[in-house]
Amino acid sequence: MAKDKASRRPRAETPKGFRDYFGADVTERKAMLDAVAEVYHRYGFDPLETSAVETVEALGKFLPDVDRPNEGVFGWQDEDGDWLALRYDLTAPLARVAAQFRNDLPSPYRRYAMGPVWRNEKPGPGRFRQFYQCDADTVGSASVAADAEICAMLSDALEVVGIPRGDYIVRVNNRKVLNGVMEVAGVLDPSDPAKFEAERGIVLRAIDKIDRLGKTGVRALLGAGRKDESGDFTKGAGLSDEQAEVVMGFMAAKRDTGAATAARLRELVGASTLGCEGVQELETIAELLDAQGYGPDRIVVDPSVVRGLGYYTGPVFEAELTFEILDEKGRKRQFGSVAGGGRYDDLVKRFTGQSVPATGVSIGVDRLLAALRAKGRAGAEAQGPVVVTVMDRDRMGDYMAMVGELRRAGLRAELYLGNPKNFGNQLKYADARKSPVAVIQGSDEATRGVVVLKDLVLGAQIAAGASLEEWKSRPAQVEVPRADLVRAVQDMLS
Amino acid sequence: MAKDKASRRPRAETPKGFRDYFGADVTERKAMLDAVAEVYHRYGFDPLETSAVETVEALGKFLPDVDRPNEGVFGWQDEDGDWLALRYDLTAPLARVAAQFRNDLPSPYRRYAMGPVWRNEKPGPGRFRQFYQCDADTVGSASVAADAEICAMLSDALEVVGIPRGDYIVRVNNRKVLNGVMEVAGVLDPSDPAKFEAERGIVLRAIDKIDRLGKTGVRALLGAGRKDESGDFTKGAGLSDEQAEVVMGFMAAKRDTGAATAARLRELVGASTLGCEGVQELETIAELLDAQGYGPDRIVVDPSVVRGLGYYTGPVFEAELTFEILDEKGRKRQFGSVAGGGRYDDLVKRFTGQSVPATGVSIGVDRLLAALRAKGRAGAEAQGPVVVTVMDRDRMGDYMAMVGELRRAGLRAELYLGNPKNFGNQLKYADARKSPVAVIQGSDEATRGVVVLKDLVLGAQIAAGASLEEWKSRPAQVEVPRADLVRAVQDMLS
Repeated sequence: MAKDKASRRPRAETPKGFRDYFGADVTERKAMLDAVAEVYHRYGFDPLETSAVETVEALGKFLPDVDRPNEGVFGWQDEDGDWLALRYDLTAPLARVAAQFRNDLPSPYRRYAMGPVWRNEKPGPGRFRQFYQCDADTVGSASVAADAEICAMLSDALEVVGIPRGDYIVRVNNRKVLNGVMEVAGVLDPSDPAKFEAERGIVLRAIDKIDRLGKTGVRALLGAGRKDESGDFTKGAGLSDEQAEVVMGFMAAKRDTGAATAARLRELVGASTLGCEGVQELETIAELLDAQGYGPDRIVVDPSVVRGLGYYTGPVFEAELTFEILDEKGRKRQFGSVAGGGRYDDLVKRFTGQSVPATGVSIGVDRLLAALRAKGRAGAEAQGPVVVTVMDRDRMGDYMAMVGELRRAGLRAELYLGNPKNFGNQLKYADARKSPVAVIQGSDEATRGVVVLKDLVLGAQIAAGASLEEWKSRPAQVEVPRADLVRAVQDMLS
Repeated sequence: MAKDKASRRPRAETPKGFRDYFGADVTERKAMLDAVAEVYHRYGFDPLETSAVETVEALGKFLPDVDRPNEGVFGWQDEDGDWLALRYDLTAPLARVAAQFRNDLPSPYRRYAMGPVWRNEKPGPGRFRQFYQCDADTVGSASVAADAEICAMLSDALEVVGIPRGDYIVRVNNRKVLNGVMEVAGVLDPSDPAKFEAERGIVLRAIDKIDRLGKTGVRALLGAGRKDESGDFTKGAGLSDEQAEVVMGFMAAKRDTGAATAARLRELVGASTLGCEGVQELETIAELLDAQGYGPDRIVVDPSVVRGLGYYTGPVFEAELTFEILDEKGRKRQFGSVAGGGRYDDLVKRFTGQSVPATGVSIGVDRLLAALRAKGRAGAEAQGPVVVTVMDRDRMGDYMAMVGELRRAGLRAELYLGNPKNFGNQLKYADARKSPVAVIQGSDEATRGVVVLKDLVLGAQIAAGASLEEWKSRPAQVEVPRADLVRAVQDMLS
């Protein structure tokens, strides 16, 4: 009680940027991931669960000239002086596993992984330092059939969790086509790949912002630069008008059919070998998907998809939800991207020196869950347990027998385990638990061999103003023989 | 290729003491935990998933006079200089949550949690620095009905995952009884609880080692001490013969029925108020369990259970698997403990200053999984996917259509995505994947509108020496019309 004692008490707080998940938060995410895993399993993908902790060396975040690993990760030094860190994604650990177990894993190796990752970044509203990722990758296949398969699987996964066909679209593009266009525009020299790297970075990021900036904004960034509403100026790629128009043409290359889009892209990449190869790959992907029945209502070639990450080397894809929601300010907008991925052929090479082709997709777990809630496919308030109340604390055995019978019948049921003195508190508890039925048996009912069932759902409706007729036709409280407890509760719940 | 470049390559290794889980390792654990969660749900327990990272302050591992947190945890300093650490169990985070959200959570609060925890301890064979825990706790109930419920739920959970009744026993004891016995033995003074603390610690640890040391070993530790086979000497509690005999009598107090055991314990605790209270609680627990049909074939009062942890304040329990397995040296031994828990009334008090009664159980996930494998209830080699091979790389669309049809029929199926040049490699791949059926269609079969199905299970049996009759009655390879692909594969798998 002394003040100095109280001030030494630890604070009961989650660390900044972390959160706890309660009840339905856990079960809804689990149900969604279980459904996705079922699809991945059917496609022949095996689960992999790597440890949360990796060596910083394996994560590839180590900067040799600084004391601490890159600030983006949570890292610490172990007893031998080696730096360890929490994984920041599921791809880096896969690359490590693919190298470490290269003689034991099947090749190609299809694997999926679901679990938390950690980022040592500034937290913000809805931005946490621990969050879930859900990845599927094929390591060891250079065939674009692997990319096509990932797209088909992503489409299946979205439908299985509850996004109906027509409410999503998987868009496919190819970095090689974009690089071919860059070649034509004169900002990529195949004989000197490092040249114009800064310009290409600006072009890539500009295209990635088309949804937000519109054509005019992107066009400005391709040229001298862009001044935003606040007056801030972002330096552009410095392309000439002719160069910029080639890139703009690429972004507008989407036609009504995949074949027409491919034909337009072929015009744009002209003589670029890489570009032609990229268009050919896109055509093959479209054919392979078509052979399985995945038409443009589900998966389309769309040149405006580039994906931000630098490590993609071929096909890239993105799943977008096309239905509208209201944003924080009440404006309608498309829900947007919930998954993305692509081909990355160089990640395993870091470890072994040998190039290993790989392609994969990552679902934004929290985004997709938010989408399901927006569509009413998750987040429906789950019914709570039946609550057996305690009228007479000397007969706890009788009450436990009741709750045991209900549970054995498969019903979710609880005995009130707080102090039973105040019966009002017990009903408040049942209410907090969203209980549909309270079971009550005082000594009088016990003597007569009956129990009282209180319909808490109906009770709440009556309190909320249900009509007298409704109240009469279905009383909020019934008395039934003790032997009929389970059946009567089942009736009330049905 | 230069040596200095190669030597700078990162090592592809898990950090020391960590491991990866592949395929069935993941799915078998998940199936077990899903079954347990289903039981916990039916008992009214809600899932809670706290973050992996906690403040060291909240974990309670901080020693104010040292620079780093206790070496048992993985900790680091954040940008504000606060120490963070990975959770080392699921109980400390629960205590933090119970304090942080005490105004929002139902009371009593029943919660379960399943997930990895991390220990910065010396790794060894089978001892990892990251492992799963699976806990269920009731916070806010002082009633022993809460303890009885946990025991019943543990019994149900073991049966649901596949441990048959008779192969396990849940043993219940009460720290209060042991403390009553200590009082009688003269090593606990209710008016000065701190006195004899060291002696009581030695007694507690000695009793906990009864399985390993036997009665003679424990008796030695109660007295002057014990010399082990290697000649090392462990100092004992220094009890006199009379004192030691009281404790030994306690350990041997188990009788054929719970009532007889309780009667014997009542004799032993004599006039100790705490001891009598403890016996009374054990009797109540036995009655409550009996009222639900949990007899001594599932849950028994057993005074030899003490549980090592210091923070238990009342009932303690342990689930032991009673069937025999062969140990590393080929000797028969009982499988032993797979779960344990008890009442701890002081953990939340650290944060709020107010005592909050709580009780719970933790299942040793890896131990229980090992038990299921020992019983053949898990670890059966799962059948791999159907593999569609690639004879003609120009017809990838045809092969993808086949694999798509198989998947849509709910079959697990893969297209071979490696380099198709060497057909032998494709069959080797199917073998590595434990595939039951390979689908083959060369250009000849395509022209004739058929596919060949190769029964890889039968093929392996023939290779392993199945008789000629078996071979004749069921050819390892059949040709079927392309249109019958799915049905024919289903037949072969059934």
